Amino acid sequence: MNIRAAKKDDWHAIWPIFHDIVKAGETYAYDVATTKAQAEKIWLEAPRKTYVVEEAGKILGTYYIKTNQAGPGSHVCNCGYMVSTAARGRGVATTMCEHSQQVATELGYKAMQFNFVASSNKGAVRLWEMLGFDIVGRLPKAFNHPDHGYVDALVMYKWLEKT
Amino acid sequence: MNIRAAKKDDWHAIWPIFHDIVKAGETYAYDVATTKAQAEKIWLEAPRKTYVVEEAGKILGTYYIKTNQAGPGSHVCNCGYMVSTAARGRGVATTMCEHSQQVATELGYKAMQFNFVASSNKGAVRLWEMLGFDIVGRLPKAFNHPDHGYVDALVMYKWLEKT
Repeated sequence: MNIRAAKKDDWHAIWPIFHDIVKAGETYAYDVATTKAQAEKIWLEAPRKTYVVEEAGKILGTYYIKTNQAGPGSHVCNCGYMVSTAARGRGVATTMCEHSQQVATELGYKAMQFNFVASSNKGAVRLWEMLGFDIVGRLPKAFNHPDHGYVDALVMYKWLEKT
Repeated sequence: MNIRAAKKDDWHAIWPIFHDIVKAGETYAYDVATTKAQAEKIWLEAPRKTYVVEEAGKILGTYYIKTNQAGPGSHVCNCGYMVSTAARGRGVATTMCEHSQQVATELGYKAMQFNFVASSNKGAVRLWEMLGFDIVGRLPKAFNHPDHGYVDALVMYKWLEKT
């Protein structure tokens, strides 16, 4: 498993991962009808950096890192991670999250925030907690889940600087 | 005091209010160096709607309303409010916040969220609480205040639908 910066050419391989996850509507706050071109702007162009995890020429996962709030909030970054269905359960998300914390520190960020984790996505919540993130907020009924209806969304946060 | 939708022509009167508040760096997560043209995009163009409060042809305050998260989060809106220095202490923020909740309901939103309230901005926190918002998150040291250094930022939230 190798992590490298995403290139524009990777989009044809990233898009099916993005599309599968977003059209399910269970985890990410993107419109389920997001088009391939819109998604490329969101995932590859708007963030500060985007990475892919690959193995034998196949992309297993991808993540972005960006500044979460401008000005007085610009020392905190935000990341989003996606793993292809075929590569689930192999630690790809853990690998990406650890890599992203390293990248964040190199870019000068002091903390990382996840703004909108569906509370029904228990695997993700558990994983982020294992990787040192705290639940610092709970947004009542802020996530409209296709099966469960309105569920709470969580805000998760980790201070990256060693104190 | 009258509230109406902002027009493109209002920008010359809104900009000094925006600029004074943002360059102080004490309350809003915008870059202190935001230019007039960037601010116009942020405040007038990107949001779903922007309003102004005026009295005798003078603009006392302004607010925007937009969707806070796409897709599964799109039933929650976000607003930002600014009051001119000259008009402080006259209930302009209260008037705008109450108006915005009405507008939010008319637009079909079910809840309103403030993502990043500096905990040092005690007047605002108290006001939003009086107007029915709960503190649902606390982001440790997420706001870099020019005088106080890193202070916590609060996430505040109100469900608008009567249950």
